[in-house]
Amino acid sequence: MNSDKLLQQVAFIHEIDKLKYIQRKTRLFNSDRRENDAEHSWHLALMALTLAEHANEPVDTLKVLKMLLIHDLVEIDSGDVFLYDTIINHDNTVAERKAAERIFGLLPEKQAKEFIAIWEEFETGDTPEARFAHSMDRFEPILQNASNQGGTWTEYNVPYDTVIQKTRKIEHGSAVIWDFAEKLIDDGVDKGYIKKTGDL
Amino acid sequence: MNSDKLLQQVAFIHEIDKLKYIQRKTRLFNSDRRENDAEHSWHLALMALTLAEHANEPVDTLKVLKMLLIHDLVEIDSGDVFLYDTIINHDNTVAERKAAERIFGLLPEKQAKEFIAIWEEFETGDTPEARFAHSMDRFEPILQNASNQGGTWTEYNVPYDTVIQKTRKIEHGSAVIWDFAEKLIDDGVDKGYIKKTGDL
Ligand SMILES: [Ca+2]
Repeated sequence: MNSDKLLQQVAFIHEIDKLKYIQRKTRLFNSDRRENDAEHSWHLALMALTLAEHANEPVDTLKVLKMLLIHDLVEIDSGDVFLYDTIINHDNTVAERKAAERIFGLLPEKQAKEFIAIWEEFETGDTPEARFAHSMDRFEPILQNASNQGGTWTEYNVPYDTVIQKTRKIEHGSAVIWDFAEKLIDDGVDKGYIKKTGDL
Repeated sequence: MNSDKLLQQVAFIHEIDKLKYIQRKTRLFNSDRRENDAEHSWHLALMALTLAEHANEPVDTLKVLKMLLIHDLVEIDSGDVFLYDTIINHDNTVAERKAAERIFGLLPEKQAKEFIAIWEEFETGDTPEARFAHSMDRFEPILQNASNQGGTWTEYNVPYDTVIQKTRKIEHGSAVIWDFAEKLIDDGVDKGYIKKTGDL
């Protein structure tokens, strides 16, 4: 019956409210206030809608939005992993997989499988939609850091090579956006927000 | 050229960050912390993805998501209008129309027109997608209030008839969800969170 499914779906809707408490390291634009994962997910989804025309390959926008809306839900259990963290490897950890099974597992079985498949496709990063979604996920903090006198680049003293290494995959989703992002990074070097290895 | 358009799109992406500062009256689930409009928009979008099967009529999910992701952007200029406010009429005010023109007007012209058209369709509420999107917008605060000992119903002493009058349009988007919502409202009456006129 519809009502059993609806009860499961409402339980999921309750649970995901917790994403609003997961704090990221990056801060809002021109701000000291840290962004939370729900705000981040909303912003990425609207960025994708706005920027879809710049994707390298044609993308199914609905699928990109699904990915971006759910991509961080596992962090309700496993916590935000900072992009420039040098110890924890972000890629699809055991903790994240367990979290996905618990959180999406609140949904009716067929729907749970669909959501987990979307999350896996994002994590694997092997389709045009996943590549473009990753571009959004890497582009937002560059815009934020550029607006915040270097933001986390400066705060965590991230060297230029690491910034490039961690953000370069924007290019796989959109060469146009990567070109723009690289200029912001170069500008961060010029302004002293990011140090090249020789300068450290 | 692509790069001019991209500059305009990036200006829009900066500007909409302000949605994260617009506080709603309703509070997070089981919480004293007020929700902001960006968190709210994210939650509605994911609710729509989760609950689309309960729409009365088949809906274009991508269009519903577009509506929900952008529906509150005008509040960056015009502020949040509380559902149970007895003075201000929320429906498509002059201030909101001006705000839409300014904020979406940051985008390249063709895209600005597309976004304004989506916002207007939501505001007018006359299509299956707009009706379902409105159901989500009315359903979330019911779930929140039910989890918060009556939440804004109790805090602002909203009478039963007003609650029903303001939330009943859920039924036009989804009879199944309205049936569920009405039970939560009735439960709010039983628990003393909502007063019927005779009890005031
Ligand atoms: Ca993350």
